[in-house]
Amino acid sequence: MPKLSDELYMKQALRLARRGLGQTSPNPMVGAVIVKNGKVIGQGYHERFGGPHAEINAINNAKGDLNGATLYVTLEPCCHQGKKTPPCLDTLLKYKWKRVVVGTIDPNPKVNGRSIEILKQKGIETKAGVLREECQSLNEVYFKYIQTGIPFVTLKYAQTLDGRIATATGDSRWISSGLSLKWAHRLRSVHDAVLVGVGTVLKDDPQMTVRLVRGRNPLRVVADSRLRIPMSSAILREQETAATIIAATTQADIEKKLALNVMGVEVMTVEEDSEGMVDLKDMLQKLGKKNISSVLVEGGATTITSFIRQGLTDKLVVIIAPKIVGKGVEAVGDLGIREVGRALKVSFDKVYRKGDDVVIEVKL
Amino acid sequence: MPKLSDELYMKQALRLARRGLGQTSPNPMVGAVIVKNGKVIGQGYHERFGGPHAEINAINNAKGDLNGATLYVTLEPCCHQGKKTPPCLDTLLKYKWKRVVVGTIDPNPKVNGRSIEILKQKGIETKAGVLREECQSLNEVYFKYIQTGIPFVTLKYAQTLDGRIATATGDSRWISSGLSLKWAHRLRSVHDAVLVGVGTVLKDDPQMTVRLVRGRNPLRVVADSRLRIPMSSAILREQETAATIIAATTQADIEKKLALNVMGVEVMTVEEDSEGMVDLKDMLQKLGKKNISSVLVEGGATTITSFIRQGLTDKLVVIIAPKIVGKGVEAVGDLGIREVGRALKVSFDKVYRKGDDVVIEVKL
Repeated sequence: MPKLSDELYMKQALRLARRGLGQTSPNPMVGAVIVKNGKVIGQGYHERFGGPHAEINAINNAKGDLNGATLYVTLEPCCHQGKKTPPCLDTLLKYKWKRVVVGTIDPNPKVNGRSIEILKQKGIETKAGVLREECQSLNEVYFKYIQTGIPFVTLKYAQTLDGRIATATGDSRWISSGLSLKWAHRLRSVHDAVLVGVGTVLKDDPQMTVRLVRGRNPLRVVADSRLRIPMSSAILREQETAATIIAATTQADIEKKLALNVMGVEVMTVEEDSEGMVDLKDMLQKLGKKNISSVLVEGGATTITSFIRQGLTDKLVVIIAPKIVGKGVEAVGDLGIREVGRALKVSFDKVYRKGDDVVIEVKL
Repeated sequence: MPKLSDELYMKQALRLARRGLGQTSPNPMVGAVIVKNGKVIGQGYHERFGGPHAEINAINNAKGDLNGATLYVTLEPCCHQGKKTPPCLDTLLKYKWKRVVVGTIDPNPKVNGRSIEILKQKGIETKAGVLREECQSLNEVYFKYIQTGIPFVTLKYAQTLDGRIATATGDSRWISSGLSLKWAHRLRSVHDAVLVGVGTVLKDDPQMTVRLVRGRNPLRVVADSRLRIPMSSAILREQETAATIIAATTQADIEKKLALNVMGVEVMTVEEDSEGMVDLKDMLQKLGKKNISSVLVEGGATTITSFIRQGLTDKLVVIIAPKIVGKGVEAVGDLGIREVGRALKVSFDKVYRKGDDVVIEVKL
């Protein structure tokens, strides 16, 4: 069979996989297509966390006899008993596949090529690595999280053309256009958690919920070493629809901690860094243990700078607005870099317009 | 004749016109196409300053009888005796045109619709405004200059993703990629003058000539109120291939002025602004009187900020490099803006990639 049609069907499986965006975490997005005699006879995707996997949905939706068909799946099928679902491999092995074509292996230590090995041992022609890059990129969050236990970190902020996220007086509403704001809410809805430093809470009192679009509210996290957060903060409200965790150090006031607990807000104690602030890496590890696979950091400058300085950032989403404010607050503060030759080199992954703004997605 | 074909031939005329880029200043770029019985029988463009105009080139290159043909020209033909060329209208009126189709009127006070009027009075069917916007945009420099006498001002600088044009120690080499640098030289070659503040001369000692690409050297201008420029500066060398003008105030040292004159460097005395610095508007007016229709401002931050603050900028070309340096020097300093709502609103005219960088062309 020519390679071209493999890529064609894998592309279709990728399209299906993307439909699960924001619904499958901490599990990956996966799509599957079943082809027989040049015709698609079944397709499916991993629709939501805990629901059946893509292959199973494709098999269940398929029309006709599956024996002799080819299965295309963006991620290696699982071979382990999950908390919610049985191993897909057991189901797959009930049929006589002509071929199984896989986008990328599953880096989950419990799988990691094992399913492909078993398929081959069973005499099924199995090919892995078709559109590998796209299949990996689709699940960049899952890949990092399953391999490190640390959530994938995206920093998002809006700056003026001259690089300011606020004026000299701290005013920042609104730098970006209405369309970008709406889209920022969508970005929230596909993350497990959103995070701000307590400085932003004190200054802007944001709600950090998803309002301008439909979608689930992520966990709200505040990095607040000394529990300076005002009890009346918007981010502490509506705990039933959007939970909040405050990451504090042992230096935080015990009584305030208890008062927050009474409100239904969890105070998560994390290590101190060398400056007595919340140790961001420890915080991320602890969030990882709570099944948080992705964190969207929304500011402010101090928090953004710390994440970049400590190399804890996977991705930047920078919205550039067609405005100039002059002297003001920049997103990134002192990194100790004195020469351009020693600048932090990044790559512009995607550049596109969003309303009047330009968005640059950056890989670190 | 359907409108569609008018636009088609005008597009071809525009393509021809662009070939004159960098060669026609302070005159406009113009293209012309002659069509008869649905066939292009002649085309031409204004190739260089002082050379024959586009219409004349098209007529001279045409094959066959022009009587009964349609002339497409991006800019209204001239009806006045120029320093170098006779009025095009006289030549045009020697033929019996079926139609004359014009992109945009020539805002030159000596023309400004008069030629179109005359053509109509002579009974020639004349249509103006086909692809008007493109035709005007092509000659944005000429349009501003001919109407105001003030050169079209473009600010160009390279910044990191986090908005810095240099590190905190002033290091700025090189923020942008090699490809962008090369392209920046091309940008120089299509401007009548390039300008920097004396601060940039003192810090970077730039040559400001066109080296990385083929092209003519623009006039080099330094805004230097007190003539602080070192006599050994690179910008003072090679006066025979690239002339330099220093814009200074009456406060400047007379002896230094004479010494510069001896080197072949002109010191242009301009008004002082309220801070005793070179009055930029007066400087631009005086450059305009010297037939400078376009100025490319290449920095540094003080000069860029002054041009923006005083509303003397027509266009920004911002190169954004995939680098982060943190604390450093920003292109735009204090503008006295305290609220985002009062930000200077601009529009992103073009956004494109140049090597690893992103370029945003901005209209003010």
